[in-house]
Amino acid sequence: MYLEKINNPEDIKTMDNNQLKILASEIRDALMNRLSKKGGHFGPNFGMVEAIIALHYVFNSPIDKIVYDVSHQSYPHKILTGRKDAYLYEEHFKDVSGYTNPEESKHDFFNIGHTSTSISLASGLAKARDLKKDKENVIAVIGDGSLSGGEALEGLDFASELESNFIIIVNDNDMSIAENHGGLYKNLKELRDSKGKTSCNLFKAMNLDYIYVEDGNNLEELIKTFKSVKDIDHPIVVHINTQKGKGYKIAEENKENWHWCMPFDIKTGKTKITSDFEDYGTLTANYLLEKMKNDEKVVTVVAGVPTNIGFTKEKREIAGKQFVDVGIAEEHAVAFVSGIAKNGGKPIFATHSSFMQRTYDQLSQDLCINKNPATILVNTASIYGMNDVTHLGIYDIAMMSNIPNLVYLAPTSKEEYFSMLDWSIEQNTYPVAIRIPCNGVISYKKTIDKDYSNLNKYKVEEKGSKIAILALGDFFQLGEEISSAIKKEIGITPTLINPRYITGIDKELLENLKKNHSVVITLEDGILEGGFGEKIARFYGITNMKVKNYGIKKGFYDRFIVEELLKENGISVEQILKDVKEMIK
Amino acid sequence: MYLEKINNPEDIKTMDNNQLKILASEIRDALMNRLSKKGGHFGPNFGMVEAIIALHYVFNSPIDKIVYDVSHQSYPHKILTGRKDAYLYEEHFKDVSGYTNPEESKHDFFNIGHTSTSISLASGLAKARDLKKDKENVIAVIGDGSLSGGEALEGLDFASELESNFIIIVNDNDMSIAENHGGLYKNLKELRDSKGKTSCNLFKAMNLDYIYVEDGNNLEELIKTFKSVKDIDHPIVVHINTQKGKGYKIAEENKENWHWCMPFDIKTGKTKITSDFEDYGTLTANYLLEKMKNDEKVVTVVAGVPTNIGFTKEKREIAGKQFVDVGIAEEHAVAFVSGIAKNGGKPIFATHSSFMQRTYDQLSQDLCINKNPATILVNTASIYGMNDVTHLGIYDIAMMSNIPNLVYLAPTSKEEYFSMLDWSIEQNTYPVAIRIPCNGVISYKKTIDKDYSNLNKYKVEEKGSKIAILALGDFFQLGEEISSAIKKEIGITPTLINPRYITGIDKELLENLKKNHSVVITLEDGILEGGFGEKIARFYGITNMKVKNYGIKKGFYDRFIVEELLKENGISVEQILKDVKEMIK
Repeated sequence: MYLEKINNPEDIKTMDNNQLKILASEIRDALMNRLSKKGGHFGPNFGMVEAIIALHYVFNSPIDKIVYDVSHQSYPHKILTGRKDAYLYEEHFKDVSGYTNPEESKHDFFNIGHTSTSISLASGLAKARDLKKDKENVIAVIGDGSLSGGEALEGLDFASELESNFIIIVNDNDMSIAENHGGLYKNLKELRDSKGKTSCNLFKAMNLDYIYVEDGNNLEELIKTFKSVKDIDHPIVVHINTQKGKGYKIAEENKENWHWCMPFDIKTGKTKITSDFEDYGTLTANYLLEKMKNDEKVVTVVAGVPTNIGFTKEKREIAGKQFVDVGIAEEHAVAFVSGIAKNGGKPIFATHSSFMQRTYDQLSQDLCINKNPATILVNTASIYGMNDVTHLGIYDIAMMSNIPNLVYLAPTSKEEYFSMLDWSIEQNTYPVAIRIPCNGVISYKKTIDKDYSNLNKYKVEEKGSKIAILALGDFFQLGEEISSAIKKEIGITPTLINPRYITGIDKELLENLKKNHSVVITLEDGILEGGFGEKIARFYGITNMKVKNYGIKKGFYDRFIVEELLKENGISVEQILKDVKEMIK
Repeated sequence: MYLEKINNPEDIKTMDNNQLKILASEIRDALMNRLSKKGGHFGPNFGMVEAIIALHYVFNSPIDKIVYDVSHQSYPHKILTGRKDAYLYEEHFKDVSGYTNPEESKHDFFNIGHTSTSISLASGLAKARDLKKDKENVIAVIGDGSLSGGEALEGLDFASELESNFIIIVNDNDMSIAENHGGLYKNLKELRDSKGKTSCNLFKAMNLDYIYVEDGNNLEELIKTFKSVKDIDHPIVVHINTQKGKGYKIAEENKENWHWCMPFDIKTGKTKITSDFEDYGTLTANYLLEKMKNDEKVVTVVAGVPTNIGFTKEKREIAGKQFVDVGIAEEHAVAFVSGIAKNGGKPIFATHSSFMQRTYDQLSQDLCINKNPATILVNTASIYGMNDVTHLGIYDIAMMSNIPNLVYLAPTSKEEYFSMLDWSIEQNTYPVAIRIPCNGVISYKKTIDKDYSNLNKYKVEEKGSKIAILALGDFFQLGEEISSAIKKEIGITPTLINPRYITGIDKELLENLKKNHSVVITLEDGILEGGFGEKIARFYGITNMKVKNYGIKKGFYDRFIVEELLKENGISVEQILKDVKEMIK
């Protein structure tokens, strides 16, 4: 096996074409080994094996600097830069993250997990090089799916201003995570169809030089092209047409399902992890399909991640024109739903908490200043969400709940979630965001309110005394556990409150608590700083009420274990019980 | 005068071409009347007079819906839609805001003040129209300067997906606020030079139909073109070449200075408001010019607003390659400086607090996760900043201070600001943001620290007892006043603290305060929710310390008077003194 002897990119520079082809095959085997057992990004990596070999064959990393957009295609790069063991041997799987990571290797320049960033980041490397009068090559790799993101388009527009060496590799596999959406993809198709020759060319319209590689999985062609642009004295786009999932027939034939995979059986492609549990994705899609069927004004919008709320290809087809995937374009999505709501439509936009960060200004300016009644679904907004440092779901409360006019709701059960969602879609007064629960689908038997227009009214689930527990959203069940423990261990029945509204304070209720409570604890599934609990602490600041806020200390946590992180932050029934005992002394 | 009889757009539909030309001249007079006395956006409005007359002549507003990007060019629209008095008569100047505003008129659909939003917002109006099976025209107006913004490019990419009536008017005056930057402007030039005929066309590359109007100030040509696209069944770009400042020679000749104006003398063009005071713009530019002269690795970056830190055309030329205006592209700017810092450069990016909102994700992901030592200058971050609802400067603390790894500093004087800035540029450990003071240039005679690497160490400016005042940034001087008042009125010397670090808590100091203090007050020049004070309230939540936070209640305030808003929020020496007396009882 050649791969076993490759410890850094220098080791491939003496290989001939045949050897490199065998190496490509070995890299695919290594990818298959890891991905079939552990899961990860499949299609983009299989498609980029040859291009990444060619990059490392031609350029001199890390002097020459390669920046991979969103990192979905960076595994072969990791394999060639001293991290092959993490793909060859199960005991080393944990050595690497799923993203480029400067802590792992000097060949990685940024921690990247959000799309559309590579051109801008790499242009910064190039600018610093020019200031220092250095001469290395700077290469940004970006997939076609990422091109629709505002940051990528800003970067593409800026790139020609560099007037110095800058190579943008556009990895065009004719796919986003799902199919591509947007006008520029018609231009990419024209470019592919004309072998790069059509005169109307997005990249040239951005004042960039351009070169096309017809077979982006052909090593010789790639090496020849990369050699021709090496040490170039101006910015250029190298448009390569690769095949997503190349080398694994099942993935080649079903690109959307094989963008990312769970552990699977190599022979059949069937996933090894199945679940009979209900999930909020499927539940949300089914609810919205029914809603859309009954009201042509309801429209569901996503930005490149349709299945985040269960919209599989089949369900997208059923929804027809009432389902819009804007592509990776969260800023556009939020302004778009604001416009839809303004003109009498009933739009719902859903994406992950971490991606909602990409549209802060649109939430504030386009939506909330204008107070248009769109619904925003915030998904995986939880410590139980994704656990990569680039995809943390614990920042949305601090980010969104301080925007005026927004009503941000935290349901505590399946029934409450759908009741809030239904209210939000039908009301026409407020922009409303809802945190989709993330701690499993939990049913709640008590009566659930249907109308949430009386803003900031918290719900007292159990009346008690001395201690009040404000248990927000996903942490409501933790609140119930703590309540039970306090009853049992301290002999006091605490007041258990479901705050429901993240964006406001129930002053009347909080005032009333003063009468027969001396301790208030708040529980929130997000960072403490700028969050919900601090507002309660401020409210009681000049009173004798003792307030203790539970949540996560701000930090960029990577591949954390939920229970450990909770414990580090003092969030366990045991610890909280101990704290409460201290406070009521 | 025709204008006096125009109360809504219907009134111009029976006018002939000559009458419309006279009307155009009257509109320019009205604009001149208001702008010379009150100031406002000059160049964009003077350039768009004919186009807006033509739009209202051809289309039927408000059934047909016109959305103006950033609103810089919406004054003629206001004049034609029942709001002429606000331009004709000084006593009515206050009737209208400087931006489109649905509260003023049914002809306005959104409150807009940030650039690059009109295509996305209008595409939402169009989508809702299609869902409802209505048939009106939807028109987005956008200036060339706004096209470089990510949201606009995302919207442009999406537009062709509508497959129904959608008209995008690109108002190309070959200028941003300053000169344009970015590759796409070369394509606009090619299009202008070829009268729209060059085959490489950015808009066509986005799969959009396209039509060019050579003289965008020619009424007949505009009317003919708009008639030809009215009721069109698919999206189209109408590219019109207008002259910024048209009709006022002084403005035509100096487009950058006349993008926006203060009150001026019509004959000479000279501003009526001059000031001999020092300002942080000029001071910052001079400091950075010196810094750049001495170190080729230092580079200053702005996004379309170079003079926000005093970089006039002259100073930009002196800085040369060490000054980069990326155009309106804040996302790119932050990723770009992260890349520069990663590769050993010393970048400074500066923009207004309100525009920093456009790059939350890049601050978090591209910059702070990667912990690259770039400097971010946050300008007009204050209640003393801009007072339009779309340009509020009081949200940056809540937005930025909860992002991990960021060191956000709040200087309290000129000396401290430049000391912090110098430290930030020279250190290579943290991404650092600095809030440029906004309450006037105040000198401070005491010694100022030069090293801020011992994070989160607050500075005790005066040691006292019982009461501690944490007076952040711009509100430090207010803290001094309160301290004096307390000494005088209560006879206690309070401890006066300059926290300096917005992003962290000085636990040791706060612990120590417990010994001989019973009251802590916090003062911050920003919203309370998610801000600095709440963190102090949380810290003391389980103690006996009384904490009172002063700041602004979150809200979208429009054209507020600073002193009134402060008072409404209980921020006055008198009120705080009263509160303190109550708290120490």
